[in-house]
Amino acid sequence: MADLHPGEVVPEADLWLDLTRRRRTGVAEAVYAPGKSPAQCAEAVAGLLAGTDEGPVLLTRARPAQAAAALAETPGATCTAVCEDADGASLSILTWRALAPRKGCALILTAGTSDLPVAREAAAVLEAYGHGATVIADVGVAGLHRVLAQQERLAEADVVLVVAGMEGALASVVTGMTSAPVIAVPTSTGYGSGLEGVTSLLGMMASCSPGVSVVGIDNGFGAACAAVRVLAALGPEESR
Amino acid sequence: MADLHPGEVVPEADLWLDLTRRRRTGVAEAVYAPGKSPAQCAEAVAGLLAGTDEGPVLLTRARPAQAAAALAETPGATCTAVCEDADGASLSILTWRALAPRKGCALILTAGTSDLPVAREAAAVLEAYGHGATVIADVGVAGLHRVLAQQERLAEADVVLVVAGMEGALASVVTGMTSAPVIAVPTSTGYGSGLEGVTSLLGMMASCSPGVSVVGIDNGFGAACAAVRVLAALGPEESR
Amino acid sequence: MADLHPGEVVPEADLWLDLTRRRRTGVAEAVYAPGKSPAQCAEAVAGLLAGTDEGPVLLTRARPAQAAAALAETPGATCTAVCEDADGASLSILTWRALAPRKGCALILTAGTSDLPVAREAAAVLEAYGHGATVIADVGVAGLHRVLAQQERLAEADVVLVVAGMEGALASVVTGMTSAPVIAVPTSTGYGSGLEGVTSLLGMMASCSPGVSVVGIDNGFGAACAAVRVLAALGPEESR
Amino acid sequence: MADLHPGEVVPEADLWLDLTRRRRTGVAEAVYAPGKSPAQCAEAVAGLLAGTDEGPVLLTRARPAQAAAALAETPGATCTAVCEDADGASLSILTWRALAPRKGCALILTAGTSDLPVAREAAAVLEAYGHGATVIADVGVAGLHRVLAQQERLAEADVVLVVAGMEGALASVVTGMTSAPVIAVPTSTGYGSGLEGVTSLLGMMASCSPGVSVVGIDNGFGAACAAVRVLAALGPEESR
Amino acid sequence: MADLHPGEVVPEADLWLDLTRRRRTGVAEAVYAPGKSPAQCAEAVAGLLAGTDEGPVLLTRARPAQAAAALAETPGATCTAVCEDADGASLSILTWRALAPRKGCALILTAGTSDLPVAREAAAVLEAYGHGATVIADVGVAGLHRVLAQQERLAEADVVLVVAGMEGALASVVTGMTSAPVIAVPTSTGYGSGLEGVTSLLGMMASCSPGVSVVGIDNGFGAACAAVRVLAALGPEESR
Amino acid sequence: MADLHPGEVVPEADLWLDLTRRRRTGVAEAVYAPGKSPAQCAEAVAGLLAGTDEGPVLLTRARPAQAAAALAETPGATCTAVCEDADGASLSILTWRALAPRKGCALILTAGTSDLPVAREAAAVLEAYGHGATVIADVGVAGLHRVLAQQERLAEADVVLVVAGMEGALASVVTGMTSAPVIAVPTSTGYGSGLEGVTSLLGMMASCSPGVSVVGIDNGFGAACAAVRVLAALGPEESR
Amino acid sequence: MADLHPGEVVPEADLWLDLTRRRRTGVAEAVYAPGKSPAQCAEAVAGLLAGTDEGPVLLTRARPAQAAAALAETPGATCTAVCEDADGASLSILTWRALAPRKGCALILTAGTSDLPVAREAAAVLEAYGHGATVIADVGVAGLHRVLAQQERLAEADVVLVVAGMEGALASVVTGMTSAPVIAVPTSTGYGSGLEGVTSLLGMMASCSPGVSVVGIDNGFGAACAAVRVLAALGPEESR
Amino acid sequence: MADLHPGEVVPEADLWLDLTRRRRTGVAEAVYAPGKSPAQCAEAVAGLLAGTDEGPVLLTRARPAQAAAALAETPGATCTAVCEDADGASLSILTWRALAPRKGCALILTAGTSDLPVAREAAAVLEAYGHGATVIADVGVAGLHRVLAQQERLAEADVVLVVAGMEGALASVVTGMTSAPVIAVPTSTGYGSGLEGVTSLLGMMASCSPGVSVVGIDNGFGAACAAVRVLAALGPEESR
Repeated sequence: MADLHPGEVVPEADLWLDLTRRRRTGVAEAVYAPGKSPAQCAEAVAGLLAGTDEGPVLLTRARPAQAAAALAETPGATCTAVCEDADGASLSILTWRALAPRKGCALILTAGTSDLPVAREAAAVLEAYGHGATVIADVGVAGLHRVLAQQERLAEADVVLVVAGMEGALASVVTGMTSAPVIAVPTSTGYGSGLEGVTSLLGMMASCSPGVSVVGIDNGFGAACAAVRVLAALGPEESR
Repeated sequence: MADLHPGEVVPEADLWLDLTRRRRTGVAEAVYAPGKSPAQCAEAVAGLLAGTDEGPVLLTRARPAQAAAALAETPGATCTAVCEDADGASLSILTWRALAPRKGCALILTAGTSDLPVAREAAAVLEAYGHGATVIADVGVAGLHRVLAQQERLAEADVVLVVAGMEGALASVVTGMTSAPVIAVPTSTGYGSGLEGVTSLLGMMASCSPGVSVVGIDNGFGAACAAVRVLAALGPEESR
Repeated sequence: MADLHPGEVVPEADLWLDLTRRRRTGVAEAVYAPGKSPAQCAEAVAGLLAGTDEGPVLLTRARPAQAAAALAETPGATCTAVCEDADGASLSILTWRALAPRKGCALILTAGTSDLPVAREAAAVLEAYGHGATVIADVGVAGLHRVLAQQERLAEADVVLVVAGMEGALASVVTGMTSAPVIAVPTSTGYGSGLEGVTSLLGMMASCSPGVSVVGIDNGFGAACAAVRVLAALGPEESR
Repeated sequence: MADLHPGEVVPEADLWLDLTRRRRTGVAEAVYAPGKSPAQCAEAVAGLLAGTDEGPVLLTRARPAQAAAALAETPGATCTAVCEDADGASLSILTWRALAPRKGCALILTAGTSDLPVAREAAAVLEAYGHGATVIADVGVAGLHRVLAQQERLAEADVVLVVAGMEGALASVVTGMTSAPVIAVPTSTGYGSGLEGVTSLLGMMASCSPGVSVVGIDNGFGAACAAVRVLAALGPEESR
Repeated sequence: MADLHPGEVVPEADLWLDLTRRRRTGVAEAVYAPGKSPAQCAEAVAGLLAGTDEGPVLLTRARPAQAAAALAETPGATCTAVCEDADGASLSILTWRALAPRKGCALILTAGTSDLPVAREAAAVLEAYGHGATVIADVGVAGLHRVLAQQERLAEADVVLVVAGMEGALASVVTGMTSAPVIAVPTSTGYGSGLEGVTSLLGMMASCSPGVSVVGIDNGFGAACAAVRVLAALGPEESR
Repeated sequence: MADLHPGEVVPEADLWLDLTRRRRTGVAEAVYAPGKSPAQCAEAVAGLLAGTDEGPVLLTRARPAQAAAALAETPGATCTAVCEDADGASLSILTWRALAPRKGCALILTAGTSDLPVAREAAAVLEAYGHGATVIADVGVAGLHRVLAQQERLAEADVVLVVAGMEGALASVVTGMTSAPVIAVPTSTGYGSGLEGVTSLLGMMASCSPGVSVVGIDNGFGAACAAVRVLAALGPEESR
Repeated sequence: MADLHPGEVVPEADLWLDLTRRRRTGVAEAVYAPGKSPAQCAEAVAGLLAGTDEGPVLLTRARPAQAAAALAETPGATCTAVCEDADGASLSILTWRALAPRKGCALILTAGTSDLPVAREAAAVLEAYGHGATVIADVGVAGLHRVLAQQERLAEADVVLVVAGMEGALASVVTGMTSAPVIAVPTSTGYGSGLEGVTSLLGMMASCSPGVSVVGIDNGFGAACAAVRVLAALGPEESR
Repeated sequence: MADLHPGEVVPEADLWLDLTRRRRTGVAEAVYAPGKSPAQCAEAVAGLLAGTDEGPVLLTRARPAQAAAALAETPGATCTAVCEDADGASLSILTWRALAPRKGCALILTAGTSDLPVAREAAAVLEAYGHGATVIADVGVAGLHRVLAQQERLAEADVVLVVAGMEGALASVVTGMTSAPVIAVPTSTGYGSGLEGVTSLLGMMASCSPGVSVVGIDNGFGAACAAVRVLAALGPEESR
C-alpha cells in the first residue's frame, strides 16, 4: 500500500483531510479559501462534513464565487461577511453544523476600525463552537476613557481577545485591567513604522503586563481556537 | 448597560468617535479615509462636527468619491490636493471649521520633490489649527547651498519640520542650524536601500545633532500634531 | 499634593509598588532581581508583603546576595534554584505566602536540557499560586517517540506550556496532540541561526497548529501568569 | 578578440549560455521564464539543445505564451502544469530530452496544499534526470498521524525533500524519522508572521534535528538539483 | 592654511570643539565621556569653558576617574550620579556654569525602575539649562492607576518626556492624556523580545496617539535637548 | 526676500534645480522620471538645459509619455531603451548635450540577464559623460569560465562595475582578478532569499576581497557617477 | 506510570537520552558540552554508551574540565582539539567507539583560517563514522587560483563541505565546479557587515549555483551529519 | 600531488598565503592579527615577505604581544598605534617595505573622535603604498561650519574617505561638495539606534548624493585598498 509509485502525485481530489483534528484538539480543520478554486473549496467542505459525524465545518476568507460553490454543493451554512478585499469583493466566513450554545463568553476588543475584519473572523469561529462573542471596536489607548468604560464587560468575560495594529499598546493596558486570560492578535493595519504588523507583534511579546499571550499577525482564526481551548474548561452547559 | 450581549458587534454606524480628544490633547480626532467607504467618511465627519462645539474636523487622504460624499453631507470644507495615488486619482485633505489664525509659524523643509505630499498634509493640518506653514521643497544636502539659503527663514520659524526619505541627512544638518524645535518625518520615497523609509527613520533616530525628534514613516499628520502642541505655548493671538 | 516640585525625583525608597495588581489581574507584582541592589530587593519584597493582605510575593532571578538580603529582612520564603548564571552563581526564585493547593495542573514540556531554567521558573510561579506543575524535559521533535510518550499526560493536563529554543517546532507538534490551552515560550538557547530566540518566536507565531499562543523570549514568568489566568476558571478547590 | 569595443552590449541574441554546466555539475543550465519574452525563451531553449549533445533542457515557470513559443520553435517537450499565477494563467515546466530512468527515488513531502507548486517543480526536474519522485501533500505536523503514516515510504526513499512554509516544523520531524539525506525547502506560503518564507527558512536552519540541509525560499529547482547530486552516487542503472 | 600636509593627523589635543553650537542651536556641545581618557575629558571640558563666554558645559556618563580628572582641572561642577555601570562604578553627569532658573518645567515619566538612569540624565541636562524637571518613576501601563494619578501633573507640565523600554506603550497612553508636547525615549531595558530597545522604538514611532515624537534608544541627552528647544519659547523669566 | 509667507508652497514650476552640481561634483543633476508628470519631466529638462551652459542633461527611467513630452519640448536627445516595466511599457534614458569622448573606459559585468537594465542605465550615463562603456552580461560565478574569459578585458578597463543580484558573489571574484577600482551594484533580481537585493548588498559589503566599494540597490546611476569621478583623473583627451 | 505527579521535575540524572537516534537517522545523539557541568557531561556520555550496543558517542565543544571528567568516567576516547575559546581554554571533540573506515570521502574547504574550528569539528564527526575527511583551508575567492587548484580533489570527493564566513561566495563558486553534493556552512567569522554569520547564511541560500544546500551558522556538526547521510548510500566497505 | 589523504589538515604552518595578490589587485594580502597567536602572526608576516620580492607587508590590529613577536622575527617595521582595545591594550598596524612616495593624496574626514581608529588604519595603509593621507577629525554635520571649512582641502584631494557612525550624514554632504571619488566607511560607534553600524551603512547606501560608494562597517583597510586602486591611475611619480 505504501509502495513508492514514482511520478505519482497524491491526487488533489484526495486532499489529506485531518478528520480527527476536532477530537484531538477541540477545533476541527477549517478550509482556508485563498488559493483554492471554487470547486476545491466545495469539495473540501463536503469532505470534512462527510468524514466527521458532528461539529462545525468552516470555510474562511471566501470570495463570493468560492462561497457560492460551497453552498451549492452543501447548502445550509451561516454566512458572515468579514471585510472587502482589495478588489472590493466581500470576504466571508461560512459555518456548517454550528454547535449549540454552551458556557463561556469572549470579549473581543479592537484598537481601531480597521482591526474589525480580524475581530469578526474570531467572533464567527467562537460562535460556531457555541460560545458568545461580543466585539467592541475602537477602544485604542489614544483615548483611554474608551477602554476604561469596558471595565464591567472585562469583569464578566471568560476570555478576552485584543486585536490591535500600530504599536499594539491596547494589549498591555487590557491585560492590566482583568484577571481573565488575554489573547492578543497583532494586525497589519497602519502603515510605515507598523512594518505590516511586526511592530505590534513585537510590542505584544515584550509587553510589560504579565499574562498576555500572542498569536500570529492577523490570525483571528488562531486566536479563536486558543479561546475555544480556554473556554472548554467551563463545561458543556448553555451559556445564555 | 454594559451587559454582555453575545454576538453583538458595536454597529459601525456608531463608530466610537473620540469627541474629547481636542480638549485633552489639543488636536481633534481626524478621519483617515483609506479603507473607509464614501458613506462612512461622510458619516464620521458629520458625527465629529455634531459631537463637538468648535474646532477643526479633518478628512485626510480622501479620494475624490470620499471627498464628494463628505462634502455632499456637510458642505463648507477647504479642500487641499496632496498628491495623486497609484491610479492617478488625487488624494486630498479636507478641513471644516478651521481655527482663526493664531501665533506660531512652522517652516517645513523637504529633501526632494517626492516628499511634498507628506509636507502638504502637514501644512494643511497646521493651517486648520490657525498656524502659518511655509513649505520649501528640494533642499536636500546633496547641494548644501539650498539649505544654507534658508538660514534666515530658520531663524524666524517657531518650529521646523524636516521631511526626507533616502538617508534622511537633512534632519541632522537642519537641527545643527537652528534653535527651534525640529520634528523630523522619514518618508518612504526612494527605492532599494531606503527600505521603504526604515533607513531614513533609523538615520534620524541616530542623528549626531542633539535635539531632533522623529515621528513615524510618512506621518505628516502626526508631525503636524506634534508641532501644534509646541506652538500652543505661544498663546492665542493672531500670528500675522 | 500633585504640585510640581522641580528637581524632585520620586525617591527610590518609595518605589511605586503596584499593590492592587493581584486583585485586578490574578497575579501580584513580582520583584525582578537583576539590576537591583540586595537592599532594594529586600525593601521591595517587604513592601509588597506589607502592602497586601495575602497571596504570594515573588523574587525572581535572584543572585545569592540578593536572596540572602531579602531572606534576612523577611524570613520564611521557599527558595528554588533555577540555573547558574554566566559567573557560576546560582539564580533562584523565592516565594513568600504561597497559596494553598487548588484545582488546575500544568504540564511543562521542554525541547532540550538548556530550556530547563525557563521551565523551572514557570513551575515555581505556578506552585506559588497553588497549581501543580510537572516538568518533562528533553522531548524535542528530533526524536518524536519522546513527545508521543507524553500523550497520556497531555490528556490529563489543564494547561500545557511548551518551552523550546532553536526552531521551536515542539509547540506545533504538541498543539496538534491536545485540546488543552497551549502556551509556548521561545527560548534564547541554541546559537547562530537561532538568533537568540527570534527564530523560535517567529516559528511559534507562524505555527501551522491553530490554538497555540506565545509569550516573550525566555519569559517563563509571563507564561506562568497566563496559565494562572486560564486555571483560575477551574475554581478554588484543592487539586490533589 | 577581447578588445574593448566601447558602447557594445553583448547582444542578447547571444546570451552566454553555460553549455558545460551539466558536465561540470551534473545538472544543465535551465531557462527561467519569468522576465523573458516568448521569443527569448524559445531562443534560449533552442540554443541549449543545439549547444549540447544530450541530456535534459528545461524551461521553468513558463506562462502559456512562453511555453507555446518554445514548443513552436522546438517541439517534443513534456509539459507539466505547476500552478496558476496571480492572473490565473497556468505556469508550467517543460522538459526536452529527458534522461532514461535510472537508480534513485525521491520522496517529496509537503506540509500543506499551497506548497504543492514548489513540490511539483522539484518532481518534474527529478524526473527529467531519470529519477522517480513521489509527492505526498498535506502531511503537516499539526496532525502528526499523517507524517507518521509515511514511515514506510521514508525507509524506502533514497533522498527526501521537505517543502513547508509557516514555521517549517515538518523538516525537523522528518529528519528525525529517516537516515536518508533530507533537503528542506522553505516556502513563502502563509501570511503575516511567516514573513514570506523567512520564518520557515530560519526555523529549518536552526532545526534541532541534525542532518537537514536547506535551499532558498520557494527554490524547488535548487532542491531537485541538490537531490540529483545525491542520487548520482547510486549509479546509472534503471530504477524501476 | 588649508594646504594638504600628507600624513598629518589633526592633533587630538586640538579636538575641533564646536564652540558656537549653543548660539546656533540653544544647547552647547557636551563631552560624552565613554571612550575618552580622563585627561581628554578634562581637556575637552576646559576647552569648552574657555572657548565660550557663558552657559553650561556638561560631561556625561563619566566614570569616577574621568569625573575626578575634569574636576581637578576645572573645579566647581555640580555632579549627579546617574547609574552604576556593569562593573559597579557609578556614572555621573557633571555641570559647569548652569543657567539661572527660567520659565518652563518638564515632567519626566518612566515606565519602570530600570528606566531611571535615562530619566536622571535628561533631568540633569534640563536643570543645567535652567528648567525644572520632575521625575516620576514606575508608572507603566500594566497598572494604569499609576499614570492616571499623574493627570494633574500632566496638565501643569510645559513638556513631557516618556522614558520606557519593553513595548513602550506608556508613550501612547500619556500622549492621549495631555496637550503638552510629548517626547518619547525608548530604552534598552528588558530582555528577549524587547530587542535592546528596537521594539520600544518601533512601537513609539507607530503610536496610535498623534503628536508624540521620538528620540534614539537610551538618548536621554537628546530628549532633554529637544525639550530645551521647546521650552525656550516660553521666554527667559524664572520658572519658580 | 526670505520673509515667511505662511501658506506659501514654493511653486513646483520653480523646482529648485541644482544648477551648480556638475561644477561642484563632476556630474550634473539628472531628472528621475518616476513620480513626475510628463509636463514636469519636460519642464525640468528644459530648466536644467537653460540654467547651465554645457554638459549632459539626463532624464532617467522615463516611460514613453514622459520621454515624448521632454522630446517635444526639447528635441535632440539620444534615447536608450533600458527595460520594460511591469506593464510592458519600455523605460528609457534620454541624454541631451552628451560630452565628446574622453579618456577612460568602463567594463560593466553582470551576473545574469536580469541585471541588464541596471547595467544599461550605468552605460548610458558613462557615455553621456564621454566615457566608453562595455557591458558583458551573464558571467555569474556558477560557471566560472565565463568570468575567467574576461581576464584580458579586466586588464584593460580603467574602472569595473559589477552588477549582481542573488548572493552577489561576482563582486568578490572580480575584485580579486583586477587592480582597477571596482564598484559593485547589488540588484533586486532573484526572489525569496535574495530579500529584494538586501542579501546581495550585505554580501558585497562583507566581501572577502579588499578594495570593492558598493552603491545602493539597483542604483546604476549612482555607480556610473562614482565611475565618472574615478575616470576624471585620467584627463580630458579622447579615449578611442 | 504516566500519572501527573505535580511538582515533579524529571530528574536531570535521568536525562532523556535518545538511544534509538542512530538506528532511526544514521547518526547517534551527541553530547553538546557548553552549559553542562563536567559531571553532567560524564554521565551523558556514559549513559549513551551503556544504552546503545555499538557506534560512536561524541562529546562536542568540551572544555578541559568537561573532557577530563568524561574521560575519567569512561576512558578510551579519541580527542581532537578544535579551537581555543575566548578565555584561551582549548575546546575539543571526543569520540568513543568510532566506526571502522568505510566507503565515502569528504572534502572540506574553508574560505579563511578562522573557519577552521568549524571544519575540524565536521571532520572529526565524519571520521567517527568511518569516513575520510580532508580539510583544505584558506581557499577563499579573493584569490581564485587557490580554489581552482582543488579541481582534482573536487572530482574525487564524494561530498563537499564549504565552510565560509563574510559573504560566503566560496559556496557558489565550488558548487559550479563539481557534481558532488555540496553542503555549505555559514560561519560567524568576520565582523561588522557579516552580521555574525547572517550575511553568509543569506548569500548561500540565495546562491546562483543550483544544488548547494545549507546548514545553520557555525553548525559543523550538522553539516557532518548531512554528509554521513549522503555517504551512507555508497555502502559499507572500507574506503581506503 | 592532489590525491586525497583522508584526515589530513593542510598544516597551519603552511597557511596558504596569497602571494600574487599585489600583482593581481594592486594591494598585497595583509595579516589580520585578531584570532592569531603571536607565533602565527610572525610566521605569516615572514612568509609574505619571503614569498614576494617587493612591496608592503602589513600586520593589522596587532596587540602588543603580536606586534612584538612579528618584530622579533622580522625587524624593521613602521608601527602606528591605532586605538586601545576594550582591555586598554593598544592596537597597532605594522608596515614592512613601505613603497616610496608616489602621486595621489587622500583626504580622510571623520564625523567624530571615536571614528579616528578606523581613519588611522586607513591612513597607515595608504602611506604604506606611497600615498599621502591627511586625517581631519570631528567635522560632523551637527556643526556644518567644520566641514565647510574643508572646501579647499576637498578641492585638492585625489580621493576622499568619509568615516562616520551614527546616521552617517557626513558622506552625503561631502559627496555634494567635491568631484573627487568619495569612499564612505560606516562605523559602529554610537549606541542604541546606530545598530552597531547598520544605520550608518544603510544611510550611506541610500545617500541622496550620487557618486558615493561604501565599504563594510569599520573596514578602514578595505576603504584604503579601494583608494589605492583609484590613485594608481595617477601614475608612479612622487606626489610631494
